[in-house]
Amino acid sequence: MTEFELIAKYFSRPNRSALLGNGDDCAVIAPRPGYAFAVTTDTTIEGRHFLPTIDPQKLGQRVVAVNLSDLAAMGAAPSYAMLSIALPRVDERWLERFSTGLWRALDAHGVELIGGNTTRGALSIALTAFGEVPVANGKQGGLTRGGALPGDELWISGPLGDAGWALYCMLGDPRLSAAATATLEQIARYELPQARVALGLALREFATSCIDVSDGLMSEAMHIATASNVAIDIEFASIPTGLSDALSSLQDGAFARHCLLATGDAYELLFTAKASDQARVEALFREHDLHGARIGRVNAATEATSEESRVRVLDAQSHPMKIAANGWDHFAGSEV
Amino acid sequence: MTEFELIAKYFSRPNRSALLGNGDDCAVIAPRPGYAFAVTTDTTIEGRHFLPTIDPQKLGQRVVAVNLSDLAAMGAAPSYAMLSIALPRVDERWLERFSTGLWRALDAHGVELIGGNTTRGALSIALTAFGEVPVANGKQGGLTRGGALPGDELWISGPLGDAGWALYCMLGDPRLSAAATATLEQIARYELPQARVALGLALREFATSCIDVSDGLMSEAMHIATASNVAIDIEFASIPTGLSDALSSLQDGAFARHCLLATGDAYELLFTAKASDQARVEALFREHDLHGARIGRVNAATEATSEESRVRVLDAQSHPMKIAANGWDHFAGSEV
Repeated sequence: MTEFELIAKYFSRPNRSALLGNGDDCAVIAPRPGYAFAVTTDTTIEGRHFLPTIDPQKLGQRVVAVNLSDLAAMGAAPSYAMLSIALPRVDERWLERFSTGLWRALDAHGVELIGGNTTRGALSIALTAFGEVPVANGKQGGLTRGGALPGDELWISGPLGDAGWALYCMLGDPRLSAAATATLEQIARYELPQARVALGLALREFATSCIDVSDGLMSEAMHIATASNVAIDIEFASIPTGLSDALSSLQDGAFARHCLLATGDAYELLFTAKASDQARVEALFREHDLHGARIGRVNAATEATSEESRVRVLDAQSHPMKIAANGWDHFAGSEV
Repeated sequence: MTEFELIAKYFSRPNRSALLGNGDDCAVIAPRPGYAFAVTTDTTIEGRHFLPTIDPQKLGQRVVAVNLSDLAAMGAAPSYAMLSIALPRVDERWLERFSTGLWRALDAHGVELIGGNTTRGALSIALTAFGEVPVANGKQGGLTRGGALPGDELWISGPLGDAGWALYCMLGDPRLSAAATATLEQIARYELPQARVALGLALREFATSCIDVSDGLMSEAMHIATASNVAIDIEFASIPTGLSDALSSLQDGAFARHCLLATGDAYELLFTAKASDQARVEALFREHDLHGARIGRVNAATEATSEESRVRVLDAQSHPMKIAANGWDHFAGSEV
């Protein structure tokens, strides 16, 4: 099977709305009048972003979700995607399952695959995703990290920590106790994250800033705080999570706290909104069946605000907890 | 050095014309009024697309050229690029040189880098490039593979075979004689291909089809012939190449012929134009200092046209030469 046959069999569909789809040197696309393209690209690598044991169908769904999550964080409506995939060999059973998952996730959001290429190499999958955001008077209307204001409230669209916990359990991380286990729900949160596309679109109307939790709560909150030039206080007890048991465990409590605050793969939206919009956010959570919560507030950054105190996590007595601000970083590694 | 610091240091520049540049979940871009985006993505992998010995600065230039070549083949004007790079480790000397080459090539064509991500992994570089093509009445105005007509002439914008030959020589391919060597010019053709952007833009006005030679002459000609539903005859003696000596060598002649017809990495434009446009093409070659040539003609495909005879290579007596139509294919491998 040649590269061209492989693409034709697994990664091609008739062209829908692209001006020129799959099969030439480039695809040609244009946003609708009054819109611009939000564009994001991500590479998913075996052993780094997923385990070799993952079901290829889930992997196909996952690479789409990871990219659409970035579009969701902008409040963009997904429209197109391009795929660049390196495969160690042509394994038709793998390709069949992987592409089934890929199309399922693309179809769920009406995304058209407009091109792709394959090459031989260590398994790695690069997806570039395009969504539409409104543009008026030369200004783009998507959500950014930079609009949070003092007095705003901080929200998360769903539970944190479970995906990271599940990954460490599956890896059998030696820092975990022998009793530590992940539930099927937690494993599903890791393997099949959901991009909060509909929520992001609704938030575009009124949220003041937004980011998706791909790395970890602390590091994403820091991105918002820095880009908005504000300080953020997070109430630890308010963060939704499936890790309550682990958090209260003597042996695994510290590790669970790390998972909650500093591991990624959750792909929930972290966003800020005016305090007066509380009911509006809660109505959206109900409408989209999300178990989100208000988890903190935005304060003014003063001269006394150091990098360490820009994002604080408060305990039940509203005292700052002592924790390292180590969100997952691909080159720095992660520590508890 | 964290992923964010690395991107900030080597792969960020102030935003120019993007609605939103580097540093948020997505970049936001829009084509100028009356234009659409031509988009292409390519992954470059160590050991597959380049040798570990390549100067990182040349590699940076090369990954840009390879993508801009696809834009050139559409007659698109390059505008933006996104980078996704996997690195085995943070090597600042390597990053310094690689990014220097990358920026040099981007700057040469006025391309703005609007985003990127880095991850740890085997060295691989995925670039997505955006260019503009005109659009009118819902139809895109870029060059495609599909417009060649019987009577058209077939052109190539520069020499073929040298880049492939240089690669095999550098690899010390056992099929080569001990006497086989590559000149510095041939090595440069492999390491530093030039995207024919200005030529592509000019050809958009009148060429009937166009493709860039990334895989090999035979396979690219087959793409045009199939997409245009025509047959193509190539005159072997007309193909410009620096391989004349090797072609006439008893030991290396067959291998040189393979390089000429079926190895890639040349990144010249293969295109068709009306016979009446001959002087126009020749004037463009002079204007852009290109050593291109007219190398064949387009014929009608008839019922007698088999897949094997759709693209023919004719010898000096206009007799079809017996050659396997094996352009480079990443999964089929290559054979002489």
